[in-house]
Amino acid sequence: MILEKDDKLILLTNDDGLYAAGLKTLLEVMEEFGKVVLISTVESMSGMSQALTVKTPIRVKLLEENDRHRIYACSGTPTDSVKLAINQLLERAPDWVASGINHGANASVSVLYSGTMAAAIEGCLYGINSVGFSLNNFSPAADFSICKKYIRIVMKKLASEPLPSGICLNVNIPSARKDEIKGIKICRQARGNWKEEFEKRKDPMGKTYYWLTGVFINHEPESTDTDEWALTNNFVSVVPVTVDMTAHSYIDKLRKSFKK
Amino acid sequence: MILEKDDKLILLTNDDGLYAAGLKTLLEVMEEFGKVVLISTVESMSGMSQALTVKTPIRVKLLEENDRHRIYACSGTPTDSVKLAINQLLERAPDWVASGINHGANASVSVLYSGTMAAAIEGCLYGINSVGFSLNNFSPAADFSICKKYIRIVMKKLASEPLPSGICLNVNIPSARKDEIKGIKICRQARGNWKEEFEKRKDPMGKTYYWLTGVFINHEPESTDTDEWALTNNFVSVVPVTVDMTAHSYIDKLRKSFKK
Repeated sequence: MILEKDDKLILLTNDDGLYAAGLKTLLEVMEEFGKVVLISTVESMSGMSQALTVKTPIRVKLLEENDRHRIYACSGTPTDSVKLAINQLLERAPDWVASGINHGANASVSVLYSGTMAAAIEGCLYGINSVGFSLNNFSPAADFSICKKYIRIVMKKLASEPLPSGICLNVNIPSARKDEIKGIKICRQARGNWKEEFEKRKDPMGKTYYWLTGVFINHEPESTDTDEWALTNNFVSVVPVTVDMTAHSYIDKLRKSFKK
Repeated sequence: MILEKDDKLILLTNDDGLYAAGLKTLLEVMEEFGKVVLISTVESMSGMSQALTVKTPIRVKLLEENDRHRIYACSGTPTDSVKLAINQLLERAPDWVASGINHGANASVSVLYSGTMAAAIEGCLYGINSVGFSLNNFSPAADFSICKKYIRIVMKKLASEPLPSGICLNVNIPSARKDEIKGIKICRQARGNWKEEFEKRKDPMGKTYYWLTGVFINHEPESTDTDEWALTNNFVSVVPVTVDMTAHSYIDKLRKSFKK
């Protein structure tokens, strides 16, 4: 892959691993926008959040190269992959970081656990226009092709109006037929949490172990400006995500409280 | 440990593992405030962020119990530990989740990578008053005892004025002598990023591997209202942290942009 001066360079990753159908779909769309360097793990890394690999070294292998893309396998997390690509593998800083298409939604507080969104947040921390895409369909037979139209719209928007520093996009696509999707809705993250229901089991040696399972609880199902509402009502949700986790609205109150 | 009706119940964890000096110090202080259930990993889990264990089962072992505390070893991440404790191990929902004292600061964007803060954020998602403590000293000989005074102040404040839903505290204590610490400063998260400098090495088989290293770049060293400034100037920084990652200030602009 030769990067010409006018080529856009896109760093692509995900958290479902190199063989995920959603990654293949996203690669196809990204190649319409520029040269693509894809880096991901062989195995899936779901729920890895912004985790870093600090106790073991990271290994990278170039798997494939043609005139449109290069593909690397990385042993680290999605966040490691973005860091390593930007620092060691890319010809120059990428124009975009794209992550996904995740197999399953990353709406509401799932943004905190998501490896897909962590990769986008990492790109954003480097000052790069970054976006994570997820499909609200966990079925092995999920049809990712319905996402293409909306990925193109978002990418064209990013090309014409770059995001401000410290903000990336969290795009979730509903699980619906093409003709049922009502369009794009700019949203805020819904208030909610995952209520865990650990499955307690015994192993063949009689020892207890737990599987993490859970159900998402939307604390405000009636609010129509949230990503959860958008997905439930067949809209594509686009949430601007900030890397600033300060609760700014509470600073003054806290300051007063500590002065007492 | 018998939990009486009037006892406060504190869930305690960290990301430096069960043998970390900072955890021992935090346990000592927490026992002044109530009965403590401590759960952590044997090994350290630094940089694990809000990662979940979804591909392997989680194991837990009761290591120690007396009339003041119970201590569990958990095979999962700090976030798993909080989830599992609340759902399977505790008599009832805890009054507080406390995490730390981390060996090293978690100021600015380190909140995104920190397992210590992830545990506090997890408690917060369950509607529990939660706080993460970190000491800005990475030395193996770090003196955690200087933190005690400030942990007590923060805990008393939380007891008298509980935090609003969706907000937890990120408390960083400077690396200084007791008499050099100037007090507590309520701050916002500084804008900055970690600039990686991967160390590229060859293993004995001649294959390349990378170690993640990095330096933190403060993008606004002159701003006096940030956690980074506070630490540098020997203040204890207290940042209210929200689980809402929406860039609210950008929603209207994005909405207009997508309407064009």
